[in-house]
Amino acid sequence: MTPKLQRFLAEAKDTEPFVVVDVDVVEQNYRELRRLLPLAKVYYAIKANPAPEILRRLRTLGSSFDTASANEIQQCMDQGVSTDRISFGNTIKKKRDIAWAFEQGVRLYAFDSLCELQKLAELAPGSQVFCRVLMECEGAEWPLSKKFGCAPRMAADLLVKARELGLDPYGISFHVGSQQTDLNQWDKAVAQVSQMFSVLQQADVDLRMVNLGGGFPARYRTDIPMLEAYAQAISDAMTKHFGNKIPEMIIEPGRGLVGDAGVIQAEVVLISEKDYDDDRRWVYLDIGKFSGLAETMDEAIKYRILTPRDGGPTGRVSLAGPSCDSADILYEKAEYQMPLALEVGDKIQILSTGAYTTTYSSVGFNGFPPLKSYCI
Amino acid sequence: MTPKLQRFLAEAKDTEPFVVVDVDVVEQNYRELRRLLPLAKVYYAIKANPAPEILRRLRTLGSSFDTASANEIQQCMDQGVSTDRISFGNTIKKKRDIAWAFEQGVRLYAFDSLCELQKLAELAPGSQVFCRVLMECEGAEWPLSKKFGCAPRMAADLLVKARELGLDPYGISFHVGSQQTDLNQWDKAVAQVSQMFSVLQQADVDLRMVNLGGGFPARYRTDIPMLEAYAQAISDAMTKHFGNKIPEMIIEPGRGLVGDAGVIQAEVVLISEKDYDDDRRWVYLDIGKFSGLAETMDEAIKYRILTPRDGGPTGRVSLAGPSCDSADILYEKAEYQMPLALEVGDKIQILSTGAYTTTYSSVGFNGFPPLKSYCI
Repeated sequence: MTPKLQRFLAEAKDTEPFVVVDVDVVEQNYRELRRLLPLAKVYYAIKANPAPEILRRLRTLGSSFDTASANEIQQCMDQGVSTDRISFGNTIKKKRDIAWAFEQGVRLYAFDSLCELQKLAELAPGSQVFCRVLMECEGAEWPLSKKFGCAPRMAADLLVKARELGLDPYGISFHVGSQQTDLNQWDKAVAQVSQMFSVLQQADVDLRMVNLGGGFPARYRTDIPMLEAYAQAISDAMTKHFGNKIPEMIIEPGRGLVGDAGVIQAEVVLISEKDYDDDRRWVYLDIGKFSGLAETMDEAIKYRILTPRDGGPTGRVSLAGPSCDSADILYEKAEYQMPLALEVGDKIQILSTGAYTTTYSSVGFNGFPPLKSYCI
Repeated sequence: MTPKLQRFLAEAKDTEPFVVVDVDVVEQNYRELRRLLPLAKVYYAIKANPAPEILRRLRTLGSSFDTASANEIQQCMDQGVSTDRISFGNTIKKKRDIAWAFEQGVRLYAFDSLCELQKLAELAPGSQVFCRVLMECEGAEWPLSKKFGCAPRMAADLLVKARELGLDPYGISFHVGSQQTDLNQWDKAVAQVSQMFSVLQQADVDLRMVNLGGGFPARYRTDIPMLEAYAQAISDAMTKHFGNKIPEMIIEPGRGLVGDAGVIQAEVVLISEKDYDDDRRWVYLDIGKFSGLAETMDEAIKYRILTPRDGGPTGRVSLAGPSCDSADILYEKAEYQMPLALEVGDKIQILSTGAYTTTYSSVGFNGFPPLKSYCI
């Protein structure tokens, strides 16, 4: 935690939970990623945290932006981002949103199906398009599913079709899974992509770009390889499979840029036991699954938590949010420990919460307000 | 679907998804519940849907209100509900919220721990309190957990303690689980509660109230017993275990009052396949887990869906939301079928979505706006 964050937290007078992001840390993360992967163009996945201060800082640093919707494109434009630095990276787009984005000047689009390709040909003629490929990936903490991408053989056909339809078949994207801990996944994925480049070359389609997606980690409870190791795994895979003909590279970090830059401060509302012979305490916070911590779904992301009583003896706890919903439990199976001296009213800090917190929070489930957000 | 709803949906010009609630259906549901359980006082669980029109209609009908937070109490008061008709039913309350509620005149509070009881004794002296008991219940579609309630023997001690602390030990609450399909659960639960009444009488504490919670169903894809059967199960259990000394009864329907009264209208954004030999289509809607359909978490609640192409041949589909989050899948395992003739741009209706949709939706994940809501 940076001194700037520590000072802010110590001085905060808020009675409701909030997240505070140190934008200087976002900048450091960006510079570090650029240093480690100089060949890759960074498209910040703004869904991770669209705070204007973050968008402005990254714009100034030269970043590009990966967007999921017309509103996200607007949010970038509102912060002075020109549309030639914006990718409409969602493979699921309404026709009118494609038309609007094209009108604004966006010329880079994702797709993973014939249906989407036809929409793009009609409403964004001549644009650069990349096809998302479905990879079977293991090792990610936040699971991917079959929702995005299509089989490589289908992707290859669609990229040929793209050219027929008057679009520019620019490249291939894949995603190894958010918070990916198994670095071998990069090698497997890049190998497959390079094969597709060859196949398409035979069909006279010259792909020029590999979009490596996100998957760059933040520091949660599980030990993860350092960013250096990630960058190395990617560089090695690209060199191994593309030799000296390395294509343009795009990366789409979200969590990797802003996750560690943010801290949530929350309050202990209740500490209770369920029975006399049950030594597990239940600790209830004023923040939960529906007010910012949605990524605790199935206990997927395990945040590190600081309390003012750290250092003394600890005991097992279940951690839950303040709502009347029985699904609003943060950790029941993850075996969290908290100080026995913990008290109602204590302010606690939930670390690495700069990503996927503010925008995930509900408009007001159980009457609890959305997560307040500061950028410093 | 009522003619009023059908007319509204047919005439709607919205380009984004919305929910519309027929407040007359809420009224019918309320009257039906009153008719079937005349001895029970209805406290509407406003977390299910706090729309002002719903609160006003139920206030006029004589309903009381179960609230989860200071904001929900305020929302009731804003619609003219007097605080003697409000229960602060969350067992997890901040001290300042208890103090504020007491100041407003709220005199009925839930608790399930010594810690909460002490807060109530300090900040809501003399109030009626009821203890939530932890029941091991099976058969509910939306699972309960150990988050709420304590063991019956602990609850009994706490109710004795409540009197010592100057509070009024009013009764016991339990919850058999939302969308409960096994009616025997009511008998098991009421049996346990009646035993506690006897135990406490021996300690000279005269409990006067049983709070039976919610669990009243809406009509989703699974067949459920009719409301009559629920009411009968409850009446039978109360008579069997309390004889001719039936205590006051409180019920807290949320879903049971507003679930069936609402319909979501959404749009098909994309239909795609993942591979040539995979006959399962993926159908993407402009609404998902993060914009109103949070209860599809783990495919718990299975909504019925209408399309304009119903009647023709159908095929297997996975259903997903519009966001770039791979967790934003509605149904992948639940084996939904949709018409083969379904097309991008088709408007579909998701039934029984009046409860737990508007307030669950995120403030703007992926830039998608919160679910719009109409009451007619």
